Amino acid sequence: MSDRPFKKITICGIGLMGGSLGLALQTRNLAESVCGYGRNTDRLSRALEAGVVSEVTTDLSRAARKADLIVVCLPVGLIPETASQLAQFAPKEAVLTDLGSTKAELIAKIESELGEGDPAFVGSHPMCGSEKSGFETANAELYEGATCVVTPTLTTPQHALRKVSDLWKGVGGKVLYLDPQMHDRLAARTSHLPRVAAAALCHALDREMDAENRDRMVATGFLGATRTAAGDGDLWTQILSTNREYVLDALGDFQGTLHALRGILTDGDPKRLKDWLDEGNTIRRRFDNAQDRGGE
Amino acid sequence: MSDRPFKKITICGIGLMGGSLGLALQTRNLAESVCGYGRNTDRLSRALEAGVVSEVTTDLSRAARKADLIVVCLPVGLIPETASQLAQFAPKEAVLTDLGSTKAELIAKIESELGEGDPAFVGSHPMCGSEKSGFETANAELYEGATCVVTPTLTTPQHALRKVSDLWKGVGGKVLYLDPQMHDRLAARTSHLPRVAAAALCHALDREMDAENRDRMVATGFLGATRTAAGDGDLWTQILSTNREYVLDALGDFQGTLHALRGILTDGDPKRLKDWLDEGNTIRRRFDNAQDRGGE
Repeated sequence: MSDRPFKKITICGIGLMGGSLGLALQTRNLAESVCGYGRNTDRLSRALEAGVVSEVTTDLSRAARKADLIVVCLPVGLIPETASQLAQFAPKEAVLTDLGSTKAELIAKIESELGEGDPAFVGSHPMCGSEKSGFETANAELYEGATCVVTPTLTTPQHALRKVSDLWKGVGGKVLYLDPQMHDRLAARTSHLPRVAAAALCHALDREMDAENRDRMVATGFLGATRTAAGDGDLWTQILSTNREYVLDALGDFQGTLHALRGILTDGDPKRLKDWLDEGNTIRRRFDNAQDRGGE
Repeated sequence: MSDRPFKKITICGIGLMGGSLGLALQTRNLAESVCGYGRNTDRLSRALEAGVVSEVTTDLSRAARKADLIVVCLPVGLIPETASQLAQFAPKEAVLTDLGSTKAELIAKIESELGEGDPAFVGSHPMCGSEKSGFETANAELYEGATCVVTPTLTTPQHALRKVSDLWKGVGGKVLYLDPQMHDRLAARTSHLPRVAAAALCHALDREMDAENRDRMVATGFLGATRTAAGDGDLWTQILSTNREYVLDALGDFQGTLHALRGILTDGDPKRLKDWLDEGNTIRRRFDNAQDRGGE
């Protein structure tokens, strides 16, 4: 009928991430049908109208039926239950994946629910996105050039791993295989710590009592450093709660280096201060050519 | 001869800030001549060729002569000495200002050097810019819509204050008058703390030993949060060194809120974690419509 690599791909949750995936799949002719599942009929019809997906449904069983790949693009807290439900209705050969920002706790839960005859699940986490939400902010190039982490476990079948890798390569991503625990350990430093530091900078700003002048002084530096603090509180509570230990580790190192800085500033030795700043500068400049996807 | 508001404006230091000022002054026909002073003849000729300024010189006395306004766009550590030298050669009616990121220490130094018959000095700090440098990154719209802090003291003559305010209004800025101490207190939170937090996030990243995977996981969140860490170490050593007390105050509040977060994460209470994140979210959303100038 067609030589597209996928027949039916189902996307559960049509926000920025799911919507962008839908657009990317269609732009690149990767699937015969891209089915959007959601609960809000009004938003679903508008997503369909906007061409983000090619069909929509509010019926989970219909969403899963005949799908060869199902991508769960929901907040971390909703992923395990939704994945288990979808697995009941999906064909045995189907593969499920997700886009959750933490992996170990969630994957352990899902794997414990799935049995022998069930479709396979492989975790994913594409390292792109922004503090924005809704399919209205979706774009077909979101995954282009992004590191897409795929987290197989000892029980992951080869065919499932291949299918999920093909998905991310298909939309332009660079696949990185990591153990779920290792993913969480690294994400704590590259993503979760920057997110809480952004919130903490906002808190520290508000401890200054001259509210009017304080806010007028806010510019580039503060805005860039705190952009992720505008991200949804509920979503981030789930992310941080499912990665507590590694976030605490990363936070500890962050607190340690701030403590060292306090000592340097208190001593007033410009040479040591410059060394401390230069070290940060050298680290940051490793990413000079990295694309800052989505955030703007 | 012409009805332009300024006859000769001299810009000392043709980098991103000075270069953008030169472009803005010329685009808006605000001065009959925009003189660029610098020490590197090669860079000066290229700035002239690029149309960033209308004349150039490496001679400080020539730069100051006949100027009605002199803007010192140099690193904080060089401003006091350069301003004092320029004052010797400038007409008595001339006004000097600067673009230094800290104000109190620097202004006290300059005012102690200037005598009765000398040109007046008024401090400025436009809240725009980026981690980039060099006139090649200059743009005529940099100051458009930016808060431009002007810091008069008890000894500032009215005519000088008016001239400097006219400059910033002329290039599209919104003038905010602040006492130099108050400027430094607020800048510690809106600018200096975000800068050191960015460096500290880089340090914390590098404490993770899996270097290759760690760096591949870096994306939007980390890149945005740490952009200012790419800023020059020398320049920032001078800024932080001349605002030590207020930076330590702001750092203390930052450390305090991170300590609170550690407690919340350790307790594992999602409700308190969400409240903490929501508070940061509410603060950040006050700036949703703020323009993020220059940084990109």
